[in-house]
Amino acid sequence: MKISINANRCEPSPMRKFHPLAVKVKEDGKKIYHLNIGQPDIPTPAAFYEATRAFDNKTLAYEASPGNPALIDAIRKYYAKLGISLDADDIFITTGGSEALLFTCLSILDPYTEVIIPEPYYPNYTTFVHAAGGVIRALHTTPEEGYRYAFRDRIEKLITKNTRAIMITNPGNPTGVVLSREEMRMIADVAKEHDLFLISDEVYREFCYDDKYGIPSMGRFTDIDDNLVIVDSVSKRFSSCGARVGCVITKNKELQQAILKFCQSRLSVATLDQVGATALYSVDKEFFVQSKAEYKKRRDTVVQGLRDIPGVLVEEPMGAFYVMAQLPVDDADKFQRWLLTAFSDNGETVMFAPGAPFYETPGSGINEVRIAYVLEQKELQRAMELLGKGIAQYRKEQMGL
Amino acid sequence: MKISINANRCEPSPMRKFHPLAVKVKEDGKKIYHLNIGQPDIPTPAAFYEATRAFDNKTLAYEASPGNPALIDAIRKYYAKLGISLDADDIFITTGGSEALLFTCLSILDPYTEVIIPEPYYPNYTTFVHAAGGVIRALHTTPEEGYRYAFRDRIEKLITKNTRAIMITNPGNPTGVVLSREEMRMIADVAKEHDLFLISDEVYREFCYDDKYGIPSMGRFTDIDDNLVIVDSVSKRFSSCGARVGCVITKNKELQQAILKFCQSRLSVATLDQVGATALYSVDKEFFVQSKAEYKKRRDTVVQGLRDIPGVLVEEPMGAFYVMAQLPVDDADKFQRWLLTAFSDNGETVMFAPGAPFYETPGSGINEVRIAYVLEQKELQRAMELLGKGIAQYRKEQMGL
Repeated sequence: MKISINANRCEPSPMRKFHPLAVKVKEDGKKIYHLNIGQPDIPTPAAFYEATRAFDNKTLAYEASPGNPALIDAIRKYYAKLGISLDADDIFITTGGSEALLFTCLSILDPYTEVIIPEPYYPNYTTFVHAAGGVIRALHTTPEEGYRYAFRDRIEKLITKNTRAIMITNPGNPTGVVLSREEMRMIADVAKEHDLFLISDEVYREFCYDDKYGIPSMGRFTDIDDNLVIVDSVSKRFSSCGARVGCVITKNKELQQAILKFCQSRLSVATLDQVGATALYSVDKEFFVQSKAEYKKRRDTVVQGLRDIPGVLVEEPMGAFYVMAQLPVDDADKFQRWLLTAFSDNGETVMFAPGAPFYETPGSGINEVRIAYVLEQKELQRAMELLGKGIAQYRKEQMGL
Repeated sequence: MKISINANRCEPSPMRKFHPLAVKVKEDGKKIYHLNIGQPDIPTPAAFYEATRAFDNKTLAYEASPGNPALIDAIRKYYAKLGISLDADDIFITTGGSEALLFTCLSILDPYTEVIIPEPYYPNYTTFVHAAGGVIRALHTTPEEGYRYAFRDRIEKLITKNTRAIMITNPGNPTGVVLSREEMRMIADVAKEHDLFLISDEVYREFCYDDKYGIPSMGRFTDIDDNLVIVDSVSKRFSSCGARVGCVITKNKELQQAILKFCQSRLSVATLDQVGATALYSVDKEFFVQSKAEYKKRRDTVVQGLRDIPGVLVEEPMGAFYVMAQLPVDDADKFQRWLLTAFSDNGETVMFAPGAPFYETPGSGINEVRIAYVLEQKELQRAMELLGKGIAQYRKEQMGL
């Protein structure tokens, strides 16, 4: 019996790679500060639980394949407030942004066709692209340039006759890079001029820490309606990762038909969670003001903490809740393992996501890490302290410095 | 921009094809008896809602990628009662049986590799196999033979050097065919001898209407541990389709690794639904006794109703809650459209799933239908009456008979 080539081309999640080791370490009594997964600790708005608790259909039946009509309507209204006009048919509710990405890749990629993605990128993109037999053409960026990628010449250099799409996360995971309106327009133009799909993963849209960005969305460029695929989710917006409710949005009629087929094949997204998600779209905007302010403080804490560590290269991220940093160590993966197994300060240690798997280009990101600033101030401060101590001790013991 | 070849190879769901037309017909005031979708009306056990309402984690966080440990444990205990011993690592919780099937296909199929599936089969199998670039080699059956497919020579004739798996639904959807223990053993032997995966979709396991079948599972044949993939779900077992909680079970270590990668890529199955599903596994077995008795009555009603219609060819199904029947019409698809648009008896009509899309072989199943007996006795009786009247009128008006 054989495992498929495409499954073999996928990699285990770098965010979850050290999970089994971490479980063991915790059993031995060590406390771990988790900066490795984008699981926010912000309380989920009560509206979610109120709605799911009030649900009392005798039979928990399938929902419609393209999604709960009330949820689709709520999403339409949310987009209308952003100045983006959507029809109900433009929106397909998916099991998280993850399924939105998988269905999009399966719908537009043939084996050996290519997707241009700025690296470092969210590593699960690899699985979605590879599941469809596609190939990632990495738009390389560097910590020295603050991981910025919106350069027309560099993007166009990667376009071949096999290119099907450009895929971006804006605001960026793992880099926190946010595109300016001009940069967004340029990327939209490139997609349009070269007849490419533009897959815009905008799940962190509300988390921009400079007011000049507003709430960015490619959906405002109506001249790219045929090219654009927006990936969205309630996970980060409403701190409801476990609901697994997202959506894929496109006005491209052919793509709508393809995505509908995949939606029908899995019957529906979880019924109860869609009821909860619908309620989430009614939460007061004060929720966003508060959670954004909280994340901004956390970002400042982490960036300051990183800058206080000698030899760390970091640029202030402008959005999402991640920061990518270059550490003065030989290998972030080795360093992480060492932090878990050999390091302890007062019975505590820290976890991040090693950087290399966020890159397609071999040899890149070896001494970089992604840090998710999803803990409270105090915990974050302590985590940064642990990181600093860990780096100093590791350099001495393991690198002879 | 191009749609992928594999997406183009998929078809819209035949169960949901007439949905937009049905919505319009209902708006015009006609009542429709839905026998087209396997959505049971049996109430979901209260345990589900009690558990989800009691859930009060402040933040609705991601669950572990392979699934909620308590749910995995509940499933292990359920299988232990069937005499099947599973490790926690053998079970991956999925978003319904659908995701279990998709991840399995993505994990074992390369483009142009083949899966042997008895036809007629559950049409969504097409999407899962085609998503991975695979090809379905149909093991043809006929209404005259009661859709039975367990013939060693016919199966082996379909095996080529590109065959990767045999995929069965037992008890069968859409046919209701249940394999005898000897037939199961023979198919297990064929998979083992030819080094093929055996994908056994057993989501209707509890619904066998002759006690001689017990609760069938390929999992009892421990000598095929390396070949076997069991697809399972709470949807039908606990009348909880909208929970979207299923699982894929395999003891093949390589396959476990591949499936884990796909599980990690979509982070987790919905957290709340897994809490509900865990509680479902504690429901009293009286629930199964009652729902099976109810379905058996319904089956008898439908089969009798069909036998009372002149020219209908039907065999009593032994499991699941579907029956496949050959109708004395020229084209079941045309007939369904006519039933919705041109037919009405006292302001009522009936819907089923046309048979052709359940077949891979062109020209098959044109005058066959799948009927899901998921309504109450009275409704079913009326639906059968409508079908009989519809057939008579259609034959007269449309076929000149």
